[in-house]
Amino acid sequence: MILDVQGDDPLHSGAGLWMYRFMEELYPICRSITGEGTRETLRRIAPHVPIEIHEVTTGTKAFDWTVPKEWNVRDAYVRNEAGERVIDFNKSNLHLLNYSIPFRGKVSQETLREHLFTLPEKPDWIPYRTSYYKENWGFCVSQRQAEALREPEYEVCIDADLKDGSLTYGECFVPGDTDQEVLFSCHVCHPSLCNDNLSGIALMTWLARYLKQKNSRFSYRFLFVPGTIGAIVWLSRNEELVSKIRHGLVVACVVDHRKPTYKKSRRGDTEIDRAVLHALRTRGLDYSVREFTPYGYDERQYCSPGFDLPVGSLTRTPHGAYPEYHTSADNLSFVRPECLADSLSIYLDVVEILESNSVYMSQCPKCEPQLGKRGLYRALGGLPDAEKGEMAMLWVLNLSDGKHSLLDIAEHAKLAYREIRRAANLLIEHDLLKEE
Amino acid sequence: MILDVQGDDPLHSGAGLWMYRFMEELYPICRSITGEGTRETLRRIAPHVPIEIHEVTTGTKAFDWTVPKEWNVRDAYVRNEAGERVIDFNKSNLHLLNYSIPFRGKVSQETLREHLFTLPEKPDWIPYRTSYYKENWGFCVSQRQAEALREPEYEVCIDADLKDGSLTYGECFVPGDTDQEVLFSCHVCHPSLCNDNLSGIALMTWLARYLKQKNSRFSYRFLFVPGTIGAIVWLSRNEELVSKIRHGLVVACVVDHRKPTYKKSRRGDTEIDRAVLHALRTRGLDYSVREFTPYGYDERQYCSPGFDLPVGSLTRTPHGAYPEYHTSADNLSFVRPECLADSLSIYLDVVEILESNSVYMSQCPKCEPQLGKRGLYRALGGLPDAEKGEMAMLWVLNLSDGKHSLLDIAEHAKLAYREIRRAANLLIEHDLLKEE
Amino acid sequence: MILDVQGDDPLHSGAGLWMYRFMEELYPICRSITGEGTRETLRRIAPHVPIEIHEVTTGTKAFDWTVPKEWNVRDAYVRNEAGERVIDFNKSNLHLLNYSIPFRGKVSQETLREHLFTLPEKPDWIPYRTSYYKENWGFCVSQRQAEALREPEYEVCIDADLKDGSLTYGECFVPGDTDQEVLFSCHVCHPSLCNDNLSGIALMTWLARYLKQKNSRFSYRFLFVPGTIGAIVWLSRNEELVSKIRHGLVVACVVDHRKPTYKKSRRGDTEIDRAVLHALRTRGLDYSVREFTPYGYDERQYCSPGFDLPVGSLTRTPHGAYPEYHTSADNLSFVRPECLADSLSIYLDVVEILESNSVYMSQCPKCEPQLGKRGLYRALGGLPDAEKGEMAMLWVLNLSDGKHSLLDIAEHAKLAYREIRRAANLLIEHDLLKEE
Repeated sequence: MILDVQGDDPLHSGAGLWMYRFMEELYPICRSITGEGTRETLRRIAPHVPIEIHEVTTGTKAFDWTVPKEWNVRDAYVRNEAGERVIDFNKSNLHLLNYSIPFRGKVSQETLREHLFTLPEKPDWIPYRTSYYKENWGFCVSQRQAEALREPEYEVCIDADLKDGSLTYGECFVPGDTDQEVLFSCHVCHPSLCNDNLSGIALMTWLARYLKQKNSRFSYRFLFVPGTIGAIVWLSRNEELVSKIRHGLVVACVVDHRKPTYKKSRRGDTEIDRAVLHALRTRGLDYSVREFTPYGYDERQYCSPGFDLPVGSLTRTPHGAYPEYHTSADNLSFVRPECLADSLSIYLDVVEILESNSVYMSQCPKCEPQLGKRGLYRALGGLPDAEKGEMAMLWVLNLSDGKHSLLDIAEHAKLAYREIRRAANLLIEHDLLKEE
Repeated sequence: MILDVQGDDPLHSGAGLWMYRFMEELYPICRSITGEGTRETLRRIAPHVPIEIHEVTTGTKAFDWTVPKEWNVRDAYVRNEAGERVIDFNKSNLHLLNYSIPFRGKVSQETLREHLFTLPEKPDWIPYRTSYYKENWGFCVSQRQAEALREPEYEVCIDADLKDGSLTYGECFVPGDTDQEVLFSCHVCHPSLCNDNLSGIALMTWLARYLKQKNSRFSYRFLFVPGTIGAIVWLSRNEELVSKIRHGLVVACVVDHRKPTYKKSRRGDTEIDRAVLHALRTRGLDYSVREFTPYGYDERQYCSPGFDLPVGSLTRTPHGAYPEYHTSADNLSFVRPECLADSLSIYLDVVEILESNSVYMSQCPKCEPQLGKRGLYRALGGLPDAEKGEMAMLWVLNLSDGKHSLLDIAEHAKLAYREIRRAANLLIEHDLLKEE
Repeated sequence: MILDVQGDDPLHSGAGLWMYRFMEELYPICRSITGEGTRETLRRIAPHVPIEIHEVTTGTKAFDWTVPKEWNVRDAYVRNEAGERVIDFNKSNLHLLNYSIPFRGKVSQETLREHLFTLPEKPDWIPYRTSYYKENWGFCVSQRQAEALREPEYEVCIDADLKDGSLTYGECFVPGDTDQEVLFSCHVCHPSLCNDNLSGIALMTWLARYLKQKNSRFSYRFLFVPGTIGAIVWLSRNEELVSKIRHGLVVACVVDHRKPTYKKSRRGDTEIDRAVLHALRTRGLDYSVREFTPYGYDERQYCSPGFDLPVGSLTRTPHGAYPEYHTSADNLSFVRPECLADSLSIYLDVVEILESNSVYMSQCPKCEPQLGKRGLYRALGGLPDAEKGEMAMLWVLNLSDGKHSLLDIAEHAKLAYREIRRAANLLIEHDLLKEE
């Protein structure tokens, strides 16, 4: 069964706005690699798609790693002598060093400064910092806020728990005609940050919601996991399943207004790599391509040498490459519904290619079949050049020798996959082409 | 036995003029995919080369195709009220829609116009149009001729037969030392058009005439066939022979004054591809190269996936890429004898490479042989650089390891094939090289 | 055991000057493909490295070649009527045509001129010419010297022997942990010429002297051989040894001030090719690369098809490509100690790569290991980009799958080999990496 993902699908209209609204809903929640914020985020996905929420106990081994403690914050602030909150977690959850240990006490200005993180080159922005694997407390503030701290002493309160509990991740499985899978994965551990990565959560939720209403060849698995540790935990608990993953994408940073970027899988020339590049190329808009590097998002884990999965990452501007990255400026006003919708349309193009790409055999391999007698060829000869649709048919017939998939043919012929797919359908109807 | 196709061969002088005269002779004949015109054309080749003329009955199956009816025209015109022929087949056989059904009757100006074909952007030229696989009648006229038709009614007469008969093609076989074949194929179905393809017919006739007087390693097969259906018929009747075809070229459009163009075989890197590209590259003149596409001349059939023969197409400007293409402007005044001769010289260079290219083994593979003691090396050492001839010898010795043909060596060394061939001959004479 | 060839090695300081002094010492000696000059040269290497001097009798067969007669000169001059030496071997050994036959007698100016070699375009330089394989006598003089010869008759004396004796070559073997060898070869047959090739002799002597004081994985073999015939003789006497040669370089022209040039081995992509190119690329200085050609120095023999050894040639300006080549201008004032030292440093970089390049297996192939808990990763997350050292570790872990050597990884990651090697060492220390 082949997906119908044409542009006039009623589900599409308003997709950008739908995703934007969902980001708005999730924005205020303080997420981390563990804790109630992440759990709450997953709970809010549940009304839209059949998501299974997994809890993995602190201390559980996952390859070289161990599930860390659960972190929950009730309140956090720095107060001056007058009792005013000069830094307040309630104003922005970025203020608190993410995964900070609890702390209470009076400290000198000097000591406090050792625990402050700022971005001097962007004096109004609050940076986002974490301290997962080294115990520390701290606050992130704008440079101006830091400069305004002139009093000799401050009262610090980090009313948080860091204790045994569990790590939480969500998994949504949409079965298809076969048990071969397409994997989509996003990280859900960032607090109030939009491009990175509420945009990924929203896009994946929309996509899962869309696909569960469709027939599809592949089964689809959507992982909503805390970065690094979440992907590692999932892989460690699903090793036997990994061989079913035929294609995959890590979804992040899909909402900024800059051009899309594809980071290839470790193998670099798998079908997902070629499908994404074909989709990007045939849009006629600017895009960029990066070779795999072992740094970035969770493709690091999916593409570790022991798994080496065909998983790339399709973003707009990649991590670290835009000024708003990991700062308070990656907020809702940075978000553009139409950019999210545009990212989604590329994901849908990719899904369309993956779903329908196959290898066929021409049923008339010796010389061309007579297209004219089947009404497939312009009747009047001698025109200067064949039309596009006819060229697509001729290419499909010429290259359907059992060695070329439709995507191979599209790339070789320098025609859009959709043209080639349409030509193949026509030839199948006329018994000139058959799936191998 | 290796061909001697040096430039001073007496057969060469006047080749351009000879071919031009032959085109002149064939120009007035009205050819089509079947009929007396094509038959007559083949008969006129017969005095020059041993051509076998095959007749294949209407209705014969050839893969997905069926041999069509035979078409013969006695007369065709459109007359005005005054009885004057305003369109006259006798003035140009292009005027009649090729393969038009017979028709007689008075028609309104409006109806007539529905059966007229013009080229508005070239108002003085008559277009060439065919209607092979859809029954239709019509005339091709210049835009000015069409505009001059002002009378309300015209008398139309197409005194033609379209009935059971046969399809005619010619085959000329020149045996060589082995039964391995080189195939040359051209289409013979176009009426009074010169570049496309009287030039191909003339060049192939000259080449066959030349080769039959030579000793050659390969056998040569020259096919003079109606386009598409002719090649398909030949292939369907000679399937067992196809495995002997080692190299092949489709010959067309070899007389215009623009640069030569090579369209690669479907496989793209066969010896014929490399031989033609080497010949073009080492001439030092401009040329262009195109990848295989399943549109063009009869390479479409030879390179269909069930055959996938090593057959390219060596033309000057390819079909559809020059303004005169398929119009009355592709006439004798468009023809340049010296361009035909130039095309021929490339074909001869290619034949020379194919004939003499082989894999050899150095008889002194460990270290260089001492060329000096055989008089093959300049006696006086210390000069800044070895001369070309010596370099050619050193390359042949170094790469004749059973894995490189002389053409491989020429390409690798960036030397002309002729230099490499000459060096190999010298080394063979001195027992330093032996055919594998 | 891995070589330590860091820049602060005490052996390094003064290497340029040491090599320069050694060239100075060898400069006056008149060398040829046989004879006392070459023998004396080898004897002067002996105090520095354990060199074995081989004598191979005239007439000995070596593949297609025969060891030639031994050539020794006592004196050679041309005297004018006044008894003055107008050409004097004692002033420059280049004056005598190298390997000239003995000759004594009065000759007319005209006859003398037939035996003179000059460089008209460089009127003050004496050319270097040889006549090894064709018996001849002659003198090489500057154009000005030749022009000054105005007398009708001259007395010629070439007091030389050309008779049965032996060919001499030197071989220095430095054993390593394995019997797999790295070959360095230079020619020792040129008289007073510096870049070509006293520089090669000096560099190889220094390198052998250095390596014999080090532990090394590979054994090193240094060949000091007369050009062409010497390499051929060595190969013919050591055929069984050749399979142990894993890497090799021909050393010549390593002292001029122009950029380094690497000429690839015949195979073109062996480890020595990649190691040299990596060393050149990561220096950040200009260099050039040439594909293998069967003309040049003794790589011609090592890369003949019967041996096809992984032997390239690392020079500065290659033979024939600098104006001073094979002239009296290639003298001690053309020599720059710092250029020799610079060449040496590239050779040492190459040795370092060859010695330490290996294939490893990540001991944690499924997902990344947790570098943080081992103190190998910055503690504070959320920064825009990983540092270089961390990237090197991540690359080594990701690509150490048994298919990539450290050099492969360095090239793939576009990082310096040294960075990758350092990262690998750190990972080995932490049991995260193991040699295959």
